[in-house]
Amino acid sequence: MRPKLEDVAKLANVSKTTVSRVLNKRGYLSQETIDKVEAAMKELNYQPNTVARQLYNKKTNLIGLIFPTVANPFFGELVAILENELYQRGYKVIIGNSMNNRRKETDYLNQLLSEQVDGLIVGAHNQGIEEYRYEHLPIVAIDRVMNEDIPIIESDNYFGGKQATQLLIDQGAKVILHTNGPADLDTPAMRRRKAYEDTMQEHGLVPETVVVDFNITYEEKQQIFQKIFDEHPNVEGIFASNDVDAMMLYQIAQQRQYRVPEDLLIVGYDGTTLMRTLFPDLTTIVQPIREIALQAIQTLEKRLAKRETAKEYICPVQLHHGKTGFKKQTTI
Amino acid sequence: MRPKLEDVAKLANVSKTTVSRVLNKRGYLSQETIDKVEAAMKELNYQPNTVARQLYNKKTNLIGLIFPTVANPFFGELVAILENELYQRGYKVIIGNSMNNRRKETDYLNQLLSEQVDGLIVGAHNQGIEEYRYEHLPIVAIDRVMNEDIPIIESDNYFGGKQATQLLIDQGAKVILHTNGPADLDTPAMRRRKAYEDTMQEHGLVPETVVVDFNITYEEKQQIFQKIFDEHPNVEGIFASNDVDAMMLYQIAQQRQYRVPEDLLIVGYDGTTLMRTLFPDLTTIVQPIREIALQAIQTLEKRLAKRETAKEYICPVQLHHGKTGFKKQTTI
Repeated sequence: MRPKLEDVAKLANVSKTTVSRVLNKRGYLSQETIDKVEAAMKELNYQPNTVARQLYNKKTNLIGLIFPTVANPFFGELVAILENELYQRGYKVIIGNSMNNRRKETDYLNQLLSEQVDGLIVGAHNQGIEEYRYEHLPIVAIDRVMNEDIPIIESDNYFGGKQATQLLIDQGAKVILHTNGPADLDTPAMRRRKAYEDTMQEHGLVPETVVVDFNITYEEKQQIFQKIFDEHPNVEGIFASNDVDAMMLYQIAQQRQYRVPEDLLIVGYDGTTLMRTLFPDLTTIVQPIREIALQAIQTLEKRLAKRETAKEYICPVQLHHGKTGFKKQTTI
Repeated sequence: MRPKLEDVAKLANVSKTTVSRVLNKRGYLSQETIDKVEAAMKELNYQPNTVARQLYNKKTNLIGLIFPTVANPFFGELVAILENELYQRGYKVIIGNSMNNRRKETDYLNQLLSEQVDGLIVGAHNQGIEEYRYEHLPIVAIDRVMNEDIPIIESDNYFGGKQATQLLIDQGAKVILHTNGPADLDTPAMRRRKAYEDTMQEHGLVPETVVVDFNITYEEKQQIFQKIFDEHPNVEGIFASNDVDAMMLYQIAQQRQYRVPEDLLIVGYDGTTLMRTLFPDLTTIVQPIREIALQAIQTLEKRLAKRETAKEYICPVQLHHGKTGFKKQTTI
């Protein structure tokens, strides 16, 4: 195994910060300390890498944002808020839409590693990018598990999933489907699925999750959704894992002469300002997008300042009432 | 008036490129030429500015995109395509959401001028930014008039406006309103208004344009739209200058018990993939977003290579049929 900066610090009996300073020739250092650190590096055959060097290097005041695509209303609003808030803190943002493109995500990460940006906020969905293994990178994830070291900001996916499913059951639906992303992708959004499946089982109902890859075109999605109705003509409720999917299912239900909400109840997830303005009728679980954005920025600033952060921040969700999810005239 | 690079070139009897080379110490130059240029600079008391220097300076491979906000579906899709296409050409993008923020737009422009980005693609709506007056900047505008020198890419706004208005008239509407941005902002989108007003007058109808600032919140917009219905309860047709406004008007019409399209016809503008997927019923004029994006990039590349470009590129629009704009069962 290659020696790490920590190993040098240990052998030289100094802090990691001191080793960084020696590497980057920053701050006051006695010649004795410099000699000690350099001797330790030599003994261990330590090769300073970019990651280590970057710890004390000059700031670019650029933050990279990697999300699937700003063409999606949720990521569009999230990125707009992130950019505005970061701008007010003196940063500009580089944006990468990494949908379907692992090479691109890796490329942006390497940009961080080669010191062209100060930090990254990542909500992309690609997998198996090994550069994330470096420790202590100034990275924050939104709704994504990257590794043990990178903090995650997310909405309360389990509670939201439970609330959506419980609502459908309370409204009298028994055949209730759920759409969600591929199960092999490790995202906190998978907890919506877990909550759905748990809640269904608690009520003696059979959960059935339809897997829909996030990274496909609207046409491909439409085909999958048509198939749902072909295979489950008796469907009474759908909990879709995002509002775009929920609305697409709503449109297909209309074409197929289902009355919503009388024959079919639909509940979405995300609740962007755009969707609530354009489709106030869509019942959905609202993520606090501004809170998520601000929490991500605060956490990134802590990482940049080498301060401790929690491993995970969970932001509360809220039910947006709307006609598609309420069959009865109930007051909740 | 301060002397320009051109004045130096004229006096020294060399090309502007040669003056730039002398300023930036680039390329082969004879001592005679250098002396001639420096003498001319001295005589005119010429102060080389960043803009002049940048003409030959090193590339950053960063392109700045300045748009009102990626939270809007049109700009979200446009920016996603621009970023993906620029990435494939070796560029990364810095994005600025400049809504309501002239200082921010100016800041991004200064970033260009101080050589932190290679070029800008601008679709922002702020006014009176005097830095744009510099000539030959590597800037391309989308749907915005900035100055005589900066090329504009736009959809065929006049034809689209005419098509939308003509459709409403053909469907039998006589009281037809139009919503558009403030008239004092010089944008090609104003041609939608001109086309609407011309077409109404051609048919002996009274045009009435309701001014809606683009840079306001959904709540503020909703108030303006409610007022439209208060003041024009007999409205039979609305041509909204964008699909978000069209859908907001549609929602209010529903709340007020107008039947769309029987009592009230609605036609929008933009036709993003998102809106056509979520609201296939909305009749709208579709902008060719991909074509606009590609044309903007090609034009910017020409500017970067100091090649000539047209002053204006107009991309064709298309009518998206949908239930909100068609009263009769017609085949068009």
